[in-house]
Amino acid sequence: MTVELICVGTELLLGNTVNTNAAYISEKCAMLGLSMYYQSVVGDNPGRLKDLLLTAMKRSSILILSGGLGPTQDDLTKETAAEVLGKKLVEDKAARQEIEEFMKKRGRVITENNWKQALVPEGSKVLYNQNGTAPGIIMESDQVKMILLPGPPNELIPMFEEQVFPYLYELQPDIICSKMVKLCGIGESSAETKILDLIETQTNPTVAPYAKTGEVHLRITAKASSEKAAYDLIAPVETELQNRFGNLIYTDDPNVTLEDAIYELLKEYNLTVTTAESCTGGLVAGRLINVPGISQFLKEGYVTYSNEAKEKLLNVPSEILKEHGAVSPQTAEAMAVGGAKAAGTDLCIAVTGIAGPDGGTEQKPVGLVYMSCYCKGKLFTEKNQYSGSRSKIREYSVASALTLLRCAIMESVSEVNVCGS
Amino acid sequence: MTVELICVGTELLLGNTVNTNAAYISEKCAMLGLSMYYQSVVGDNPGRLKDLLLTAMKRSSILILSGGLGPTQDDLTKETAAEVLGKKLVEDKAARQEIEEFMKKRGRVITENNWKQALVPEGSKVLYNQNGTAPGIIMESDQVKMILLPGPPNELIPMFEEQVFPYLYELQPDIICSKMVKLCGIGESSAETKILDLIETQTNPTVAPYAKTGEVHLRITAKASSEKAAYDLIAPVETELQNRFGNLIYTDDPNVTLEDAIYELLKEYNLTVTTAESCTGGLVAGRLINVPGISQFLKEGYVTYSNEAKEKLLNVPSEILKEHGAVSPQTAEAMAVGGAKAAGTDLCIAVTGIAGPDGGTEQKPVGLVYMSCYCKGKLFTEKNQYSGSRSKIREYSVASALTLLRCAIMESVSEVNVCGS
Repeated sequence: MTVELICVGTELLLGNTVNTNAAYISEKCAMLGLSMYYQSVVGDNPGRLKDLLLTAMKRSSILILSGGLGPTQDDLTKETAAEVLGKKLVEDKAARQEIEEFMKKRGRVITENNWKQALVPEGSKVLYNQNGTAPGIIMESDQVKMILLPGPPNELIPMFEEQVFPYLYELQPDIICSKMVKLCGIGESSAETKILDLIETQTNPTVAPYAKTGEVHLRITAKASSEKAAYDLIAPVETELQNRFGNLIYTDDPNVTLEDAIYELLKEYNLTVTTAESCTGGLVAGRLINVPGISQFLKEGYVTYSNEAKEKLLNVPSEILKEHGAVSPQTAEAMAVGGAKAAGTDLCIAVTGIAGPDGGTEQKPVGLVYMSCYCKGKLFTEKNQYSGSRSKIREYSVASALTLLRCAIMESVSEVNVCGS
Repeated sequence: MTVELICVGTELLLGNTVNTNAAYISEKCAMLGLSMYYQSVVGDNPGRLKDLLLTAMKRSSILILSGGLGPTQDDLTKETAAEVLGKKLVEDKAARQEIEEFMKKRGRVITENNWKQALVPEGSKVLYNQNGTAPGIIMESDQVKMILLPGPPNELIPMFEEQVFPYLYELQPDIICSKMVKLCGIGESSAETKILDLIETQTNPTVAPYAKTGEVHLRITAKASSEKAAYDLIAPVETELQNRFGNLIYTDDPNVTLEDAIYELLKEYNLTVTTAESCTGGLVAGRLINVPGISQFLKEGYVTYSNEAKEKLLNVPSEILKEHGAVSPQTAEAMAVGGAKAAGTDLCIAVTGIAGPDGGTEQKPVGLVYMSCYCKGKLFTEKNQYSGSRSKIREYSVASALTLLRCAIMESVSEVNVCGS
């Protein structure tokens, strides 16, 4: 069954609002196994909305509309949808009462235009709105089902969750499930090359790669009559990905981030960590502290942006700075060793580089970033050359630093080969 | 002139990705005075993309496409657009060289599928991609102009900024100019209430508010036959905003960020600064280090996530921690004083709070964040109560900390009243 999404709102066309409703509704529809081939955004303009509805009806069997159900003159989604399906608007007593109660509860004055929201297309199913005055509407014709939802996410989401999801679930014989296998330490092209055969030959489940900053995510998606049957289809493909990528995989859970995975390793091996950051200036610590509970393992971190700070806080010998410069493997390693000692931790991840836009030389160009991870007496050191803006270089440095931290833990504690594999 | 946006990507239809590109491009087109009536999203499916392009060509004169320019098998935007306009794909030598250099610089292996990205429709204008391997493309026919952009925002945004915006600007007979008056330390509703008369009555120039994390941006946009005439229209409105918001305005330049404005103040008054962060864990330092050249004024920063670290690195008395707790105005102030002393700086911005999701109590709920700024003997302390997720709370804390840092400098050094105005 195909579903199509039409978001109505001039604010979306002007770029004032990011369309989070689209991502939310799409994800739910994907979960339900509904195929969505098109999403559209159109302004509060009945003529253009009508054109779009007529086009969409030809290609999709369920249309979900959001927005344009408000009380003002330019909210015309309901009127237009009813016209397209040839339905009259009639007042819904329950809707009228709900509007009255909603406004009374909040001590707001009901204005004449509020009553417009109690009008619904004849024969439609009315969806109760607990967070606003615009009821949602489901209209059915032989050709199409139209689901009209209010635009504000705090009204749309609970209405979808409680009333639309169960409605769509009933329509759908199949279930779609997916797993997200996340990799770090490999580029998108290399990852894809390794699984081109799977991407090309698999139809159920399918495998699709997504490039993220410093990571590649592989989604395995299966369609089946039950959740169990779908995961049974996914399992052998996931095993195959594990065979091919090994320890580059840090999770198969879409909600787990790289810093979450590192946190789990710290917990498993009871390791403490600190950060010693030059060009990333606090962002590596900032990422690790995304994880609630990390305080047990990360107690402090150092932003050592100047040479003086590297000497003072991390005890980097001034001779190293003089001889090799602040951006060198020697300095990165001295920062890592010194940071771990200063903080009394098992691990220290250190980053030093030239984020630009100035400060580069021919020998040490902008984007040259050294990082070193100290882990219980061992050092893991890496040279990276990035390009792009200052913020890009810093962002990629943070991702690489977390990847290096993860692999240092795995190699030195669990004695698994992962770095540079 | 009408522009239409088509975002290509199955990840958008599956709800894996929020379509921030759409908001970004729409906002830019609105700035340019281009009318956008439709946005669409379609998957990596050449048949459906072709249908959509044929429909869009009939109703819009400029089509902007994003996504589907990657090296993989399912990236087919370029191939499909070229087919619709009847153009052959030919290898672009410069694009091939850029891909080669990009991959070499990063020490990555070039795989066969990378070369697909060097193919461009004959006679098209190639847009250089400094942050990735997919070049952008502009194709022109009598009927339509098509602009193809890579999907990842870090590639799309600089390409749009530097190459597409100037191209579109040239197509427009009227000139649209705007200034972005940026405020910190005031909420969106309060800001809007103060200028409701301007928003409602102005037609040229217009004033529109945009809510950003911890900031409000007011865009003044004027349309005129020349740049000078446009800025002449803008000037009196900007003066009016200055009268109404005073020192809450930190810039009128769209490219200047709050951390840039702070950098200018540090430079002007020759002040050094350090950071002492608990719940924000490095992100305040990370923001300040966004500014190239900040190293002159920020030499080091402290991530003091545990009580021990607050005592050890910032010399916070253990009695204060015991008596008032880590999340208290007293601790925030002791962190600020101690941080400035440890780093030997004029200023220290300190943040301590409960980012959640756990750790809250009735008296100190999740989202309670204290911050204090030490500035040459004076202390500026603030209590904030945020709501939302852990990352939301941390993000808002960072924005408030920068706002407090700015106002501490202005009040204590330039003796201008701004904090809490």
